[in-house]
Amino acid sequence: MGERLAEAPAGDSQGDAPDLRKLLEPSSIAVIGASEDTRKVGGEIVANLRSGGYTGRVFPVNPRAARISDYPCFSSVVDIPAAADLAIVAVNAPQVPEVIRQCGEAGIGLAVVLSSGFGETGPSGAALQKDLDQAIAASGVRVVGPNCIGLMNVQRRMFCGFGPGFRNHALASGPVAMVTQSGGYGFSVVGLCNHQNLGFSKIVSTGNECDVSTADIIEHILDDDEIKVVVAYMEGVKDGRRLLEVGEKALACGKPILCWKVGNSNVARAAAASHTANLSAPYELFKLAFSRSGFIEIREIEDLVDVARGFLGGKLPRGRRVAVVTTSGGSGVLMADRCDEAQLTLPPPSAALLKRISGALPPHSAVANPVDLTAQVGDDAGRFNRVVQAFAEDPAYDQVLVRYGAVGSANAPAWAEELASIARRSDKPLLVAWSRAPDRASQALMTLEKNGVPWFVTPGRTVTAAGALGEFAARQQALRATQRELSVSPKRIPLDLPAAAGPLGEHASKRIVAAYGIPTVKGRLFSLEEIEQLKKSPFRFPVVAKVESPDIPHKTEAGAVMIGIRSLRELKEGARRIVASARSHCSDATIHGVLVQETCSGTELILGAFVDPCFGPVVVLGLGGIYAELLKDVTRRFAPVTEAVARDMILELKAAPIFKGYRRMPALDIDALALATSRLSHLIADHADRISEIDINPLFVGPTGNGVQAADALVVLKAAH
Amino acid sequence: MGERLAEAPAGDSQGDAPDLRKLLEPSSIAVIGASEDTRKVGGEIVANLRSGGYTGRVFPVNPRAARISDYPCFSSVVDIPAAADLAIVAVNAPQVPEVIRQCGEAGIGLAVVLSSGFGETGPSGAALQKDLDQAIAASGVRVVGPNCIGLMNVQRRMFCGFGPGFRNHALASGPVAMVTQSGGYGFSVVGLCNHQNLGFSKIVSTGNECDVSTADIIEHILDDDEIKVVVAYMEGVKDGRRLLEVGEKALACGKPILCWKVGNSNVARAAAASHTANLSAPYELFKLAFSRSGFIEIREIEDLVDVARGFLGGKLPRGRRVAVVTTSGGSGVLMADRCDEAQLTLPPPSAALLKRISGALPPHSAVANPVDLTAQVGDDAGRFNRVVQAFAEDPAYDQVLVRYGAVGSANAPAWAEELASIARRSDKPLLVAWSRAPDRASQALMTLEKNGVPWFVTPGRTVTAAGALGEFAARQQALRATQRELSVSPKRIPLDLPAAAGPLGEHASKRIVAAYGIPTVKGRLFSLEEIEQLKKSPFRFPVVAKVESPDIPHKTEAGAVMIGIRSLRELKEGARRIVASARSHCSDATIHGVLVQETCSGTELILGAFVDPCFGPVVVLGLGGIYAELLKDVTRRFAPVTEAVARDMILELKAAPIFKGYRRMPALDIDALALATSRLSHLIADHADRISEIDINPLFVGPTGNGVQAADALVVLKAAH
Repeated sequence: MGERLAEAPAGDSQGDAPDLRKLLEPSSIAVIGASEDTRKVGGEIVANLRSGGYTGRVFPVNPRAARISDYPCFSSVVDIPAAADLAIVAVNAPQVPEVIRQCGEAGIGLAVVLSSGFGETGPSGAALQKDLDQAIAASGVRVVGPNCIGLMNVQRRMFCGFGPGFRNHALASGPVAMVTQSGGYGFSVVGLCNHQNLGFSKIVSTGNECDVSTADIIEHILDDDEIKVVVAYMEGVKDGRRLLEVGEKALACGKPILCWKVGNSNVARAAAASHTANLSAPYELFKLAFSRSGFIEIREIEDLVDVARGFLGGKLPRGRRVAVVTTSGGSGVLMADRCDEAQLTLPPPSAALLKRISGALPPHSAVANPVDLTAQVGDDAGRFNRVVQAFAEDPAYDQVLVRYGAVGSANAPAWAEELASIARRSDKPLLVAWSRAPDRASQALMTLEKNGVPWFVTPGRTVTAAGALGEFAARQQALRATQRELSVSPKRIPLDLPAAAGPLGEHASKRIVAAYGIPTVKGRLFSLEEIEQLKKSPFRFPVVAKVESPDIPHKTEAGAVMIGIRSLRELKEGARRIVASARSHCSDATIHGVLVQETCSGTELILGAFVDPCFGPVVVLGLGGIYAELLKDVTRRFAPVTEAVARDMILELKAAPIFKGYRRMPALDIDALALATSRLSHLIADHADRISEIDINPLFVGPTGNGVQAADALVVLKAAH
Repeated sequence: MGERLAEAPAGDSQGDAPDLRKLLEPSSIAVIGASEDTRKVGGEIVANLRSGGYTGRVFPVNPRAARISDYPCFSSVVDIPAAADLAIVAVNAPQVPEVIRQCGEAGIGLAVVLSSGFGETGPSGAALQKDLDQAIAASGVRVVGPNCIGLMNVQRRMFCGFGPGFRNHALASGPVAMVTQSGGYGFSVVGLCNHQNLGFSKIVSTGNECDVSTADIIEHILDDDEIKVVVAYMEGVKDGRRLLEVGEKALACGKPILCWKVGNSNVARAAAASHTANLSAPYELFKLAFSRSGFIEIREIEDLVDVARGFLGGKLPRGRRVAVVTTSGGSGVLMADRCDEAQLTLPPPSAALLKRISGALPPHSAVANPVDLTAQVGDDAGRFNRVVQAFAEDPAYDQVLVRYGAVGSANAPAWAEELASIARRSDKPLLVAWSRAPDRASQALMTLEKNGVPWFVTPGRTVTAAGALGEFAARQQALRATQRELSVSPKRIPLDLPAAAGPLGEHASKRIVAAYGIPTVKGRLFSLEEIEQLKKSPFRFPVVAKVESPDIPHKTEAGAVMIGIRSLRELKEGARRIVASARSHCSDATIHGVLVQETCSGTELILGAFVDPCFGPVVVLGLGGIYAELLKDVTRRFAPVTEAVARDMILELKAAPIFKGYRRMPALDIDALALATSRLSHLIADHADRISEIDINPLFVGPTGNGVQAADALVVLKAAH
């Protein structure tokens, strides 16, 4: 018991990574709320453990029974002679917090709560979930669930849950794990994947995730040598930044997380809230997290099966260059389209390669990439494979996609044997479009399977896999580069921020962004009296005057801005007028004075940053002006970012050509913009505890060498604690 | 023979719709190039006709054989005693034109040419294809192919082609037809669909389409009562406008054309050219044609199967409002996302509906849409179906999507029977997400199948079908509205166009658009001398001056424009300078004078039109300015369009909010812009024989009531014939 306590320390452990080593490999399981009635959840679980063939010890807990499913029964979890590795809790919701406390007393470190009636059911359930949180904190027991359907380890014959998914003990096993927030749908996915030749070995349903999260479980499973691919079915997460970290770990260790993210539309987000109580960040931020890490998004069973099978081939490409070899021009055309969509390129064969393969080509074949060997090579496996081998050996290609038309012919087994041998000798992915109804009795298919050559039902689905492999490899390279650069991150700059929450005035806001090295337009804050007494303008005309007030964040709407001021008289009159206008717009606004500043020019951008409750600090860059706003040409990254990443952001704007000198306009100062973007990202990341939002709008970008200037800025604070 | 000639008239019949009544239902087939060797194409076909069970007469033609596959053989097609309904030509390419002439002599109206070696192989093949064109014109024989693999009528046991697809005589039949440009891939699609419970009865491979086109065959098949759904696998077409017409026919007769369009990326277009010689219009125009007609685009076997099965249910929804009833919250969330993507709405249940279903709901179920009856109703089929029925009977919903979790339970057959009875009594589509590996032995599944209740393997795929049904129904309604309005199309306005091809000058171009009622900026053409003698400006200053020359279409680049002219002196100096600049830019340019015009203002748009070689006249509308250009905010329609359609175009621009008064800007004159767009569309449609392109850039749009003004225009002519 001492040993167990060391693994799952008591006290307020929420927020720490839980120790999940016993979750999927427990040597003993206590089922609290066990029943002899298999129509009840607690009955079905014990029956499934028994009939599924679980070889560990099972301790049913029920005060009203002596034996259940032929296991001796205990009246309370504290009566069990040895602390179980894992508790399964299937009592009514109101009893759950007390049961968790008892698990703590009994030295059980880990519990899976199946009971529903918590956060997913509205206010009364949410209150109960709070009680459960307290029980978890007090007991030190780490909890998966509530409102989940259980977990499974197919190889260990541990069918530990309820519902149709757990009654299918004939499930084929494979090196794939699944973490699913939706129990019912998740297990239906497992069944459908099995039907398409993809086996899972470890599956956990996580329900409301009041304690242990999807990210926790994925992180644990990434360390599992038996698992090569993780699938996550996800409606929402509470800690997006942790999800991103786990995704980066996946990328680093070369195991993809195939992520089926639902609950993205408004109506679906509402449905998800009442399903597993998982309120969620905007889908854009999930997509951003996925695109920087080891998450590959999927959206149908076929995607899941194909991408997983691609990765199970065990080879990653070095780049995005693909060769396509077919005996059917039609499927070549189709694959070319799909490659284009998947950002895979199809370089034409070099003269040397053409020379090498020319002997194998039939008269009418198109010698290009895709190469169409036509039906004339239909039955000539040797000739076909010679061409495949030539492409596989050519350093100009990173993957080879193959469709051989005669997979049903008498010479198909020989074709498959030879192809497998080409694949064995190559370190590149070699993917086969089978293109027939997969007949498990086919000798050729079994040869590919046995040799770990990934095959796919259609040409399009083959490219889905190739695209995912190419994308994963490219992200690995990008992550390595970014990590090298961020290791020399600039120092945190202390800021003198007022304690209260709310927006700051423009002048105060600009001082903050200036403190992080972002150039701001020259300006000075005056009182109305000071302006009245000015003998000359502080800056060259024309100047701009703006009322400085934290209570008027939208100055133009309040008539609190005057531009194009050309004389001292205009300035004095204008200052009086905008202050009067600001007062009539908002009578109790605190007015700190009038900001007088230089007029500046350049291309207008919007540079912003905010702290998302789920994903943390984010930096946003977009073109200014109404069209850019309407056409939503913006790009986002999690902060902080290096200048190199900021440059990527600039160049991924749809309007990026204007930075390079579009038409007869001058090229813009990309270096200065990248620097400002990186600095703003550090500002929000360093001060995410106090700053909730920063908007620099407009940020003027001048021609190359002329830098950027923040013409207006707004910083919104959170209250100091 | 007289009768046959009447059906397929001799002479130059290309361009006329061919008579295809005998294509798929021939009572006799001549196989020219027949062989006893079944490894040869001409041998395999005769063998397939024999072994597949074709009951019509077969006439093998081969001068060196007496019998083939037990059919008497003829030395030439002219020796066959009765004219065959159909000839299959499998001789070497160079012999094909002569064989077609002989078919004409023999009174055969229709031939399918399998031989390859034509347009798909480069210049020499293209020359041979021209010979074939001449033979077709001279003989009056209509030809499918060349470079195709044959055709099939499964119900009539006519397996009339070569390759693996034609050797599978166990193919299941169904009310679906396929027209495919890629023979090999097309038949692989048929096989894979069969594996997923979708049967085809009629399949035609069309190859290079030197005469009979995909559109011709689809049009013929749309009249076939046995066929409810047509599938088209397409790389390119020669006559896009005809494709659109056939698509509109499909919409009108309620049969969808499931279109798998490939060859869309640049590299794929090149591959398609060498595959079936089908050079193709830009993909955008295909998508435009599909979106206005009965083509539903698909891109994978699963899409094809799901959309087809949805339509085979035989019911179309009235609108886009969907109800989702599940026992799994997870699949409800997923379906909500997919509905959102498929432009299906999920209206919440009314108070009356809530009251009606409240008795059937379990305590924790989410009463919304999607409605999650939870696993607690898992086995209670009656309760589940009561909720389904309530939604099906509520006029607030157009389709009902159902996922019942217990489809593997003992009460599933009863559930399915009752559900089928609800579906029978409803005129709305009721679609079932099966969500398990489809087991053909399942009684519940067979009950759904037998009763024509469409079922789908996953929730997502169910929504694919529902979305296609919703889209098809919406397009039917839109087509009816457009046809009503276009029936009162304005009269063609004659134009006085020069005979030569090439661009016109700005002044001449503006006169053409003005002739069609599009307002142009006030302006007058002067000679330099006339300007020198001006005593006052013809228009109020500031004015604009531009050199008028058909040889300088890009005036700004040539320094041939001066804006903001504020005095007579500036005008005279400016006119001299821009003429000199134009001359130095292009020394032999014909200069017609200097166009002096008013300065105008408003929001800049680009209104254009062009004649696509494949799809004919197209009108294009987009925002002006460099951002709009870079961000590609444009919309297109086939010309002509009504003002109502032009208004749709305006409102589908991403920047559409500026027309309604964005921020504090005034609303713009949508009526005038719609009118100008419609008029330009009529201009290009009326004069597509002479005008290849029109660009009005910029077109200034003023605030509501202030109209539009073409500030610049460029018309490019084709030569008169």
